[in-house]
Amino acid sequence: MSTEFRRPSGRAPEQPREIRLTRDYTRHAEGSVLVEFGDTKVLCNASVEPGVPRWLRGKGQGWVTAEYGMLPRATHTRGGREATRGKQGGRTLEIQRLIGRSLRATVNLKKLGEFTITVDCDVIQADGGTRTASITGGCVALVDAIRYLQRNKLIKGDPFKQLVSSVSVGIFRGVPVVDLDYPEDSGADTDMNVVMAEDGSLIEVQGTAEKGTFSRAELNAMLELAENAGVQLFDHQRESLGIPR
Amino acid sequence: MSTEFRRPSGRAPEQPREIRLTRDYTRHAEGSVLVEFGDTKVLCNASVEPGVPRWLRGKGQGWVTAEYGMLPRATHTRGGREATRGKQGGRTLEIQRLIGRSLRATVNLKKLGEFTITVDCDVIQADGGTRTASITGGCVALVDAIRYLQRNKLIKGDPFKQLVSSVSVGIFRGVPVVDLDYPEDSGADTDMNVVMAEDGSLIEVQGTAEKGTFSRAELNAMLELAENAGVQLFDHQRESLGIPR
Amino acid sequence: MSTEFRRPSGRAPEQPREIRLTRDYTRHAEGSVLVEFGDTKVLCNASVEPGVPRWLRGKGQGWVTAEYGMLPRATHTRGGREATRGKQGGRTLEIQRLIGRSLRATVNLKKLGEFTITVDCDVIQADGGTRTASITGGCVALVDAIRYLQRNKLIKGDPFKQLVSSVSVGIFRGVPVVDLDYPEDSGADTDMNVVMAEDGSLIEVQGTAEKGTFSRAELNAMLELAENAGVQLFDHQRESLGIPR
Amino acid sequence: MSTEFRRPSGRAPEQPREIRLTRDYTRHAEGSVLVEFGDTKVLCNASVEPGVPRWLRGKGQGWVTAEYGMLPRATHTRGGREATRGKQGGRTLEIQRLIGRSLRATVNLKKLGEFTITVDCDVIQADGGTRTASITGGCVALVDAIRYLQRNKLIKGDPFKQLVSSVSVGIFRGVPVVDLDYPEDSGADTDMNVVMAEDGSLIEVQGTAEKGTFSRAELNAMLELAENAGVQLFDHQRESLGIPR
Amino acid sequence: MSTEFRRPSGRAPEQPREIRLTRDYTRHAEGSVLVEFGDTKVLCNASVEPGVPRWLRGKGQGWVTAEYGMLPRATHTRGGREATRGKQGGRTLEIQRLIGRSLRATVNLKKLGEFTITVDCDVIQADGGTRTASITGGCVALVDAIRYLQRNKLIKGDPFKQLVSSVSVGIFRGVPVVDLDYPEDSGADTDMNVVMAEDGSLIEVQGTAEKGTFSRAELNAMLELAENAGVQLFDHQRESLGIPR
Amino acid sequence: MSTEFRRPSGRAPEQPREIRLTRDYTRHAEGSVLVEFGDTKVLCNASVEPGVPRWLRGKGQGWVTAEYGMLPRATHTRGGREATRGKQGGRTLEIQRLIGRSLRATVNLKKLGEFTITVDCDVIQADGGTRTASITGGCVALVDAIRYLQRNKLIKGDPFKQLVSSVSVGIFRGVPVVDLDYPEDSGADTDMNVVMAEDGSLIEVQGTAEKGTFSRAELNAMLELAENAGVQLFDHQRESLGIPR
Repeated sequence: MSTEFRRPSGRAPEQPREIRLTRDYTRHAEGSVLVEFGDTKVLCNASVEPGVPRWLRGKGQGWVTAEYGMLPRATHTRGGREATRGKQGGRTLEIQRLIGRSLRATVNLKKLGEFTITVDCDVIQADGGTRTASITGGCVALVDAIRYLQRNKLIKGDPFKQLVSSVSVGIFRGVPVVDLDYPEDSGADTDMNVVMAEDGSLIEVQGTAEKGTFSRAELNAMLELAENAGVQLFDHQRESLGIPR
Repeated sequence: MSTEFRRPSGRAPEQPREIRLTRDYTRHAEGSVLVEFGDTKVLCNASVEPGVPRWLRGKGQGWVTAEYGMLPRATHTRGGREATRGKQGGRTLEIQRLIGRSLRATVNLKKLGEFTITVDCDVIQADGGTRTASITGGCVALVDAIRYLQRNKLIKGDPFKQLVSSVSVGIFRGVPVVDLDYPEDSGADTDMNVVMAEDGSLIEVQGTAEKGTFSRAELNAMLELAENAGVQLFDHQRESLGIPR
Repeated sequence: MSTEFRRPSGRAPEQPREIRLTRDYTRHAEGSVLVEFGDTKVLCNASVEPGVPRWLRGKGQGWVTAEYGMLPRATHTRGGREATRGKQGGRTLEIQRLIGRSLRATVNLKKLGEFTITVDCDVIQADGGTRTASITGGCVALVDAIRYLQRNKLIKGDPFKQLVSSVSVGIFRGVPVVDLDYPEDSGADTDMNVVMAEDGSLIEVQGTAEKGTFSRAELNAMLELAENAGVQLFDHQRESLGIPR
Repeated sequence: MSTEFRRPSGRAPEQPREIRLTRDYTRHAEGSVLVEFGDTKVLCNASVEPGVPRWLRGKGQGWVTAEYGMLPRATHTRGGREATRGKQGGRTLEIQRLIGRSLRATVNLKKLGEFTITVDCDVIQADGGTRTASITGGCVALVDAIRYLQRNKLIKGDPFKQLVSSVSVGIFRGVPVVDLDYPEDSGADTDMNVVMAEDGSLIEVQGTAEKGTFSRAELNAMLELAENAGVQLFDHQRESLGIPR
Repeated sequence: MSTEFRRPSGRAPEQPREIRLTRDYTRHAEGSVLVEFGDTKVLCNASVEPGVPRWLRGKGQGWVTAEYGMLPRATHTRGGREATRGKQGGRTLEIQRLIGRSLRATVNLKKLGEFTITVDCDVIQADGGTRTASITGGCVALVDAIRYLQRNKLIKGDPFKQLVSSVSVGIFRGVPVVDLDYPEDSGADTDMNVVMAEDGSLIEVQGTAEKGTFSRAELNAMLELAENAGVQLFDHQRESLGIPR
Repeated sequence: MSTEFRRPSGRAPEQPREIRLTRDYTRHAEGSVLVEFGDTKVLCNASVEPGVPRWLRGKGQGWVTAEYGMLPRATHTRGGREATRGKQGGRTLEIQRLIGRSLRATVNLKKLGEFTITVDCDVIQADGGTRTASITGGCVALVDAIRYLQRNKLIKGDPFKQLVSSVSVGIFRGVPVVDLDYPEDSGADTDMNVVMAEDGSLIEVQGTAEKGTFSRAELNAMLELAENAGVQLFDHQRESLGIPR
């Protein structure tokens, strides 16, 4: 790495932003977590509802899904309200499908019983990495929703399987960096979102060359960074939830 | 009033909830205010954009409008996401039209120049009175957006006219009360939203008999309560904005 | 009042327009009334259908709702057809919610049985006051629909509670006036719609300062005018329905 | 024809219903005609607007188009409001395309100048034949709109080409009949809508075997009936418009 | 006919384009036919599904319906994708209603049992006559779907009634011609689509004067051409399906 | 690998399906390619249109975008038509965004001039891998569209940068396999789509653990398989386009 390389934030390439997880942020949801990755702030509310989608009925299992939204002025310039435009955009749908798939890896759906947990991830303030923050915070809200079901004896077993966390990595001015903020995200050559399980294995990898292409070596360097950040993210999640290491 | 009358919250009939106004709540919007009326929390972001709607072009004046939304789990049970359903409901449209009309009374549109200020009111947590909180907090965000225009010398004069605030009043178990929370709101006989100017005059009055009817005397009792609460609301707004009384 | 004050129509401030109520205007609906407030003409069709909305099922009660529409050329310039644009506008939704709420005050829903009465108010020609005409005429159509249910022995008791009528009042060039036509409506300082019960009590009050604000004294003057016009409206309704005073 | 054949209405097979054309039915539209084919009542409002659709701009010609709607309770049972459902149904679109094509045969678009005339056909009461009544009444409203343009010297030449009228014919219980009302329409073996020019030539023929098929001989018998009814329809149109034969 | 008359394709007026019917074009559908009328290519897939629309339930009969679509670049210039625009256009709805009605004449719905057969007609390449090709090819796919039901013993009797085919006819430069391709279709004075049964009788006739009007004599000349082409179309269908004449 | 492992198709783990690329499949599009990956058949039509989206205007560069659709009966059971449902689903939007991003890597947009090339990928028959086939075939259609621009002297330079191809890889019953067909796709533990450039570098990697998680070693094994298949895919593309190796 060139000695002159500097990230806009002054962070070291392998240094994620400050992570904060605030549980019980609102009072109605069964799980409610404000997750902050630096200036990115997402409110993750997990709602428990009896019943499952039509195509799952009678199979004796539960369902976990996610919805994603961005407040109109979460960003530098005001984005239109999707409810006003009458539909969710492609980017929104793509992100909420990713969050839902990732969070399902947290849960043994067979042990969940016929309940649906919907995790709403609403971005209050955006500064890059809203989808990775949503997965990381949404996982904590989901665990709280599972605990609610157990505490109220609505289910018997323990559907919790493993923590799931996510971080972005990328190649910025030729250097692999972790947890890109908005200035990096909009200028990166390659951008990759990695979703991980506690044991270091992978749940989802989505890498895109925004300009040019990327090599297998760069891919490996990025995965290395993600793995190391994952260790810290899981620590944050465990500490927040009071789970011993 | 019967000696046994008690509001669910234990408040006196003429006592509004605790009001809090937090400015600069998010960092991108030109005006950003979190308003709390007790457990009702609304994020009001005022966005300045050059230009006006088509039907105002070339008239040398500005425009102020509002949009309203509720996060899916702001309420006791999860409400569907309007972006997913593909349209804003009638209640949403009615509320955002009311907020927009009310906030326009704050501004001299002729002096605003060809700018549009959109005030997004997004309910983070609902406990009754979300529209009155939105107007009260939105007015402060709007003033901040006007100051932004002045500070950056984008306009010359001062388009600010007057503060606008709003509170709900109603007849609950036969007794006129102010600033209804959710348990009162859902059980009230009559419900009225009052939008006021600093000099005590009225901008909007919307009263509905949810059950039966209401008399002129009851209407007057409710307006009395609103007027008194208005004095407190304007104090909160002025204090928050650093405006001397 | 200044001696020079003149309403565009030449009417006295307290004089409503000529009211006409034509029952059985079309032949399919269980109640069909053409209501005319001067040049404002609204066709109010009340349709009886078995069953109630999902959220009311099994409660042994009925439902009354309203829908509102305007023919594209009911106004001076052609307005787009809402069916073509693919959604009802905010104004339409707001009006039909008001009409529905107001008409429900006519009926004891518990005695209606599991029937839904939908009152369609379609504006044939608009000259101000379409929502107040809709409520006044819709009430008569609703009574005819209730009589249909009784005549055909579909219900036993009498769900009729009271007549409901509505009129607009406003401050036009500083003077309180009743039943504003389009030229007044578009130029008024304050505009208020009042929905009343036969005994003079209030069901709904919606007042808006279009410019500036209005005082409590002006509010009272407007309510006075509405109350007096209400006496005439109820006479028209009773005469039309053959109800002795 | 069997001696026992009787139409539900008692009319002779070649006898159309009573036709009425009331001009100036509403006051805002440049042409406003209530057309009645027996109990079928359609309000046809022709609106003149400057400008043409994008794909016609700069060609120095005008445009004529139509929109069709049915009030929710124009029929025996209440049909949903298309504005509420969020789109026009296939039947509605098919009918308004037919009306538009037919009415364009009335006008020399080159002589119309860059004006668009939109003919709104809204069915107040339906008893079969709403599209044929719409074309017949819409043509009269269209002529009034053209006269408005001429009277106000907005165009110089005369874009009027010819009157256009329409009637339905069908095979009902084996017998060719003209101008089917609802009971016939819903029971007919074959149903055909014929749009005609004053000289007896054809503009549009749409015949459908609802059950089985129809022969060339039956087609000819139906066309014969339509032609004869056309003579009467053109008389009505001319009389209404004060055009000598 | 003038000696100088020439169709753009060089065909004789009474000569249809080369017709090809390829069965089993895709492997999933119960009936799958690629139909070619010259350069017009439509893929007709008939899908069998258990159950019928709500309004037919419990009547012990089946249903046949059609959907029509055009690939965005089936035409000279790219047309928007209807799924992207969020609705099917009026032309699409009109065509698929025509195809559905026509194909229902092929089947005795009472003998079909409670099955729905949906015939999807998707235009791969358009050169005029896509709706007539869809009906002609869709009929063959529909017969294959019926045979599937019989082969798998899902129904007992034989719901097949008759073959149905369709061809366009028109007046091109004053001359009646059959099976118009795109250059003729876009320049024709009159355009007519004829749907026929094997015995020469008519199922649907839709004729439109695109410019001017057409006479009864012209109508007859066009029907003559359609009838003759029908003989050839039925031969193609029978040969393709292995039905002896 | 266990000696008993067998892919449902009998292919070796590293063996892709038979690939076919048919250029000029339809006659209107500037580039038209039918791509077949075994039984998966996708029609890729590239359309050239002058102009660029609003946000690119005046920058002197072009744009490449993609749309994706599936014929209703491309699959085992009929899927609803997206045009009928009124919107594209999340899966569709996600796929067409991936195709568009991938194909833009083929082109130097600066040298394309102010043209937009839209590549429509419509699935005629689906058997797994429709998005990878779309990218591989769409790239060939895109090259043909570029050649069209050059041949017609609409652009001067050569905007072609590199070929792009794509293949799926996955872990099926514990074994890494390439180019999954539908039976493998629906049963795979992990599924990954890889988009590659001719020099072996990566453009997009999207890997998802459908059940459990996957290790870095498995990721590497899958990338190996994709790289090897890529060599063959590029050979097919070059041969089809007549580009020497």
